[in-house]
Amino acid sequence: MSDWLRTRPAATPAMLAVFGDHATIAHALAFEAALVRAQATEGLVEPAIADAIGAACATLEIDPATLADEAALAGTLAIPLVARLRAACPPDVARWVHVGATSQDVADTALMSQVRAATALLAADVARIGAALAPLADRHATTPAVGRTLLQDALPIGFGVRIAQWMAGIDDAMHGLARDVGAHATVQLGGAAGTRAGLDGKGSTIAAHVARSLGLASAAPWHGRRTGTAAIASSTGIVIGALAKMARDISLLAQNQIGETREPAIAGRGGSSAMAHKRNPTGCQVALAAHYRAPGLVAGILSGLAAEEERGLGGWQAEGPALADLFLLAAGSAAAMAVVAEGLDIDRDAIARNLAAAGIGTDIGESEAIVAALLAATRAPHRQG
Amino acid sequence: MSDWLRTRPAATPAMLAVFGDHATIAHALAFEAALVRAQATEGLVEPAIADAIGAACATLEIDPATLADEAALAGTLAIPLVARLRAACPPDVARWVHVGATSQDVADTALMSQVRAATALLAADVARIGAALAPLADRHATTPAVGRTLLQDALPIGFGVRIAQWMAGIDDAMHGLARDVGAHATVQLGGAAGTRAGLDGKGSTIAAHVARSLGLASAAPWHGRRTGTAAIASSTGIVIGALAKMARDISLLAQNQIGETREPAIAGRGGSSAMAHKRNPTGCQVALAAHYRAPGLVAGILSGLAAEEERGLGGWQAEGPALADLFLLAAGSAAAMAVVAEGLDIDRDAIARNLAAAGIGTDIGESEAIVAALLAATRAPHRQG
Amino acid sequence: MSDWLRTRPAATPAMLAVFGDHATIAHALAFEAALVRAQATEGLVEPAIADAIGAACATLEIDPATLADEAALAGTLAIPLVARLRAACPPDVARWVHVGATSQDVADTALMSQVRAATALLAADVARIGAALAPLADRHATTPAVGRTLLQDALPIGFGVRIAQWMAGIDDAMHGLARDVGAHATVQLGGAAGTRAGLDGKGSTIAAHVARSLGLASAAPWHGRRTGTAAIASSTGIVIGALAKMARDISLLAQNQIGETREPAIAGRGGSSAMAHKRNPTGCQVALAAHYRAPGLVAGILSGLAAEEERGLGGWQAEGPALADLFLLAAGSAAAMAVVAEGLDIDRDAIARNLAAAGIGTDIGESEAIVAALLAATRAPHRQG
Amino acid sequence: MSDWLRTRPAATPAMLAVFGDHATIAHALAFEAALVRAQATEGLVEPAIADAIGAACATLEIDPATLADEAALAGTLAIPLVARLRAACPPDVARWVHVGATSQDVADTALMSQVRAATALLAADVARIGAALAPLADRHATTPAVGRTLLQDALPIGFGVRIAQWMAGIDDAMHGLARDVGAHATVQLGGAAGTRAGLDGKGSTIAAHVARSLGLASAAPWHGRRTGTAAIASSTGIVIGALAKMARDISLLAQNQIGETREPAIAGRGGSSAMAHKRNPTGCQVALAAHYRAPGLVAGILSGLAAEEERGLGGWQAEGPALADLFLLAAGSAAAMAVVAEGLDIDRDAIARNLAAAGIGTDIGESEAIVAALLAATRAPHRQG
Repeated sequence: MSDWLRTRPAATPAMLAVFGDHATIAHALAFEAALVRAQATEGLVEPAIADAIGAACATLEIDPATLADEAALAGTLAIPLVARLRAACPPDVARWVHVGATSQDVADTALMSQVRAATALLAADVARIGAALAPLADRHATTPAVGRTLLQDALPIGFGVRIAQWMAGIDDAMHGLARDVGAHATVQLGGAAGTRAGLDGKGSTIAAHVARSLGLASAAPWHGRRTGTAAIASSTGIVIGALAKMARDISLLAQNQIGETREPAIAGRGGSSAMAHKRNPTGCQVALAAHYRAPGLVAGILSGLAAEEERGLGGWQAEGPALADLFLLAAGSAAAMAVVAEGLDIDRDAIARNLAAAGIGTDIGESEAIVAALLAATRAPHRQG
Repeated sequence: MSDWLRTRPAATPAMLAVFGDHATIAHALAFEAALVRAQATEGLVEPAIADAIGAACATLEIDPATLADEAALAGTLAIPLVARLRAACPPDVARWVHVGATSQDVADTALMSQVRAATALLAADVARIGAALAPLADRHATTPAVGRTLLQDALPIGFGVRIAQWMAGIDDAMHGLARDVGAHATVQLGGAAGTRAGLDGKGSTIAAHVARSLGLASAAPWHGRRTGTAAIASSTGIVIGALAKMARDISLLAQNQIGETREPAIAGRGGSSAMAHKRNPTGCQVALAAHYRAPGLVAGILSGLAAEEERGLGGWQAEGPALADLFLLAAGSAAAMAVVAEGLDIDRDAIARNLAAAGIGTDIGESEAIVAALLAATRAPHRQG
Repeated sequence: MSDWLRTRPAATPAMLAVFGDHATIAHALAFEAALVRAQATEGLVEPAIADAIGAACATLEIDPATLADEAALAGTLAIPLVARLRAACPPDVARWVHVGATSQDVADTALMSQVRAATALLAADVARIGAALAPLADRHATTPAVGRTLLQDALPIGFGVRIAQWMAGIDDAMHGLARDVGAHATVQLGGAAGTRAGLDGKGSTIAAHVARSLGLASAAPWHGRRTGTAAIASSTGIVIGALAKMARDISLLAQNQIGETREPAIAGRGGSSAMAHKRNPTGCQVALAAHYRAPGLVAGILSGLAAEEERGLGGWQAEGPALADLFLLAAGSAAAMAVVAEGLDIDRDAIARNLAAAGIGTDIGESEAIVAALLAATRAPHRQG
Repeated sequence: MSDWLRTRPAATPAMLAVFGDHATIAHALAFEAALVRAQATEGLVEPAIADAIGAACATLEIDPATLADEAALAGTLAIPLVARLRAACPPDVARWVHVGATSQDVADTALMSQVRAATALLAADVARIGAALAPLADRHATTPAVGRTLLQDALPIGFGVRIAQWMAGIDDAMHGLARDVGAHATVQLGGAAGTRAGLDGKGSTIAAHVARSLGLASAAPWHGRRTGTAAIASSTGIVIGALAKMARDISLLAQNQIGETREPAIAGRGGSSAMAHKRNPTGCQVALAAHYRAPGLVAGILSGLAAEEERGLGGWQAEGPALADLFLLAAGSAAAMAVVAEGLDIDRDAIARNLAAAGIGTDIGESEAIVAALLAATRAPHRQG
């Protein structure tokens, strides 16, 4: 009942691990440990109890498949997880597990922990693309080439403009995602109805402790206010779209009659089961396939914004898998396009030949300045945030 | 790196098996075996060769995780699968594997085999819902109840009208899906460019043999013509929506201040990690969560309709995971609502109390006739197809 | 405040008229006239009253902009429309207007009347495409050409296979739409809570009269059961996608370095505001732009399936504009591609040149038989339904 | 052929004007005037020529319906618009119209001018909501009420928490939109292939002049890089979702059996064509209907991110209508919810009665502090940007 064949080719092993069962369970247990630890810090619980729960969290082993069956029955992951954690604690300690928290606190916090890890992972592959493309944009800033609009030859461009435009789009999108994750990937700690009842009036402080311990920012409870997850989802979808733009262009330029660029030749990649002579744009295929799926995943998450009352029915429960899918697709796409960027095959002769045949002259306007401006923007300090 | 926690609660074990790795590999190998067997029947290959390949298909064991890694590298499942199958055959037999076929032939045919199995599985759970609801609709056809429009009390209805409307919607949607699967879940056999080259002019006959052997209908190659998969996806999304309609109503009627229906009480289901007194509409949650995700998945598949030329780049490759997700969600939803339907708790006293308080009289119009008409429609013979 | 520039280029004047204000008002008034006429036929109302209301419906003039303001305030079109109709009737007649009906009865019936008219209109443009493409598919069935897969040259095809595949996809999609409109574009007559109260137990017969008079099929009330509109929306989206597939291919084949087909040269069409030499694929642009928008419009309508109780809040109200947009886009797309099909410029020399350069031989397999099979399918009698 | 009835109830007259034909034509002509004025400033054109073109732009009258027909034929608005502008100029002046620009420069710049105006308009209605809700949140911060989760009574909350959460969501969403419009609603000036050829090497300076003159920010050409429009679309969709969250809650609380809030009673609003006693949540209906449509509109725009080469075919052409629809829906929704907020009817007795009946005590936890924190966040200075 495994589903490697369905998920693996569109993702990366590292991102699959970020959203895999072991990570989910580890994040959920880390939340429970941090919660009671924060309660101890604030004097609500004996430190020894926090230690004991922390120890149980650190050593508890859970079979994911069994836990998933139990979660399917219960309607939430937290119920069977907390039951097991309590069972793993001494009886007088068990009743201090999960005090003041609700299922959605665990689910949302674990998801946001995964989103942070996923964004960092994604940023690394995206950075590879930028590092590989920048010198190409620079080198070809003034290489005259056919510019194409509406799929027709138009006027000449510096070939590097096209590359710099890919970079600028990907950089802009990744910057937006990092910003949204920074602002919205916060701890969730509201308790059953989002009022932080049961935390002795110290809920805000305890939430801050938990956030710090988990590497998240703190925030007021947001069980029914999903603008943050919607923003993160949209931004991830835009990253996928920006990568697909690069893939679209490369796959068009690689058409045999055009031949201006090709994906790198890599053993075992891009072949055909029926035609040995083919060199398929397989990296672009990954990025374009991701882009067919992403907008609908984003739409699904936006649909959940009108959550019912304090904690809704169905909307936030649908977010987790869809958000995971978006990051999996982004990762698969970024990794694929990093390989493409690092080995991109640019055929100067074909570029020159097509331009000559087009008979549109060689005035590339301000291509050089545009490349410089686009590259400078991707290096701007505000992009670090 | 497993992902039970992400997929299991929204699906069923049986449907996960239909789209799981073992099933995918089995369907792909069944295609290869059927193909060479059909070629033998038509005299293109020695029967002994077909036997040998069939035997290799029957015994080949492949680790899905490794195969998925290879498929990710190659860009298609068929390349590593065919390589392994060839390696498992005697040298003089190996070159007859996959003759006349292309990667997409394997992928599409395997997917359609899964779609057929999935539809049959889904139909069984949907039938459980109908069987459970029909007597309830009948029994409550003339039970006067508040009819509600725009979330406000309107005029009285027979309570059974509401139930019969759920049934009619689900039945109509499932009928549409069965019809589309019957028409469009066909074998794919076109070869590298969709012309059936390499089959000695017998491609149409061979395709018919393969189809018969796999329990599919035959059809002209449809590599770049995706109207059939789009129709199947849409119809599956509509099934999910029709189930969600029932879930929406039950969850609204189960609100404490209304209390006209509740999900059945089931040990371990619908509890709260923070509030022991709650009985959450957990089955409805599954169905509503599925419905938040489905429209976007359908949209993603529709987006792929504008496939490039003979076999596109990215579109059809994105269909498989999205179509699987739709069937997984439909299965989880149907199974959840079957449990709800079979134990649905209808509170006549609350219904009467709410109606009396509304002060809108008791004229339920033609409720009885409408229930009868809706139930009759779900039993019509044309619904068998 | 008009919005010609936003709607006209993506649609056709004829389809804009189908969904324009005058048509909407006319359909709504026709519903009211047919309703009271049916009541008279069944003896619930004096014939003279039905005559008087019918006469008022026939002569009532309403300023659409004012009516729209009033509808925006009231939250529904029917309230101000019925108020005006009553005001236009003699006092003793006025109270027989809209008896037994609710706002949504008017809205849904008018929308379905428009859907029927729209489908007929669309079918005519789609038929033009088929009529223009069939002889081209036939003529080029065995013209050897490069077949392309994953945007790479693959193996030869008969050029006509590509054309026949476009036709088969469009025909299949249009067939699905016609079938769904035939089954689901039915009259809506349920009254305030969907029970047909207030029609003296003759609601079913009255609904049948109204349906017949408006050229619709009859059906049980479907206020909260939206599987039919969802099916119609999906099928319209698939028609748009099938047209976009043709547009995708033609725009790719028209790339200057490939040049195998071009849109017809038409004065004033496809120029560039900056480059006089360009011949842009403007018809394809219309069809592709429509296809970017359609899947999301379909998704929005599917989202509304989980309507609340007897008549929902927000879902069905969102359907009308989205369904109109889908038909407007389909019409614009079909009309644009009809012009393209009727003047399609196929360059045999370029086709031959590209094939020779590809060095992939000339074996076009069973192209001729595939073309014949695809064309035969589009002529099959079951396609008439 | 007008379509008031389709567009008006979901929008506002003011926002319809922002995206109406007169505004579109005015923005396009303003671009042309600013372009030649900037060229004069940089010495590329005689000032008198710029004056003459500016005068023609200021006085040119164009019938939108005719222009729309011409734009439909040409495939772009700019071609017929520029032709008319040239015809309105003296012959020796006419050739200086539109120099260095392309159709998409006009279209994108006009659209971004509309986006800026639309955002300012929207912000005003959103501010009305905040101003109306803040005192309500404050006043009811400690009013004990039933908190509801998964549509079931859960634990008590301060009623004001719910209101403050609406505000926080809407404020967060509107902040995101304002930020994205600030960053991405920039002038487009790239010329035919995006290289600023034909501007004598002064393209960057000229673009800055044009931007200043039109009240936009300047940017490198972004014809094929659509991350900015995608971000604006997503953020608008999130605003719509945040408004729908408020509408969802109010419509649920207004159910007759709950009765904790109701929309204000307004003459002519929220009635029923069949039931005089009803008070429908008509404002919420507008906001919820908008939210059914928005996610799919966003998805459509995201789909266009993978634009082809220097200027794509179909993607950016699809953006304009979809972006306009999003702002129209946001405006209709914000205006409707402003009216609801300003007259929101909160029934303390019903709130107390429901809480007592629930038997869940009165511990509202840290509700007061949470309200204070949420309100403070909406007043934070960084929200001004």
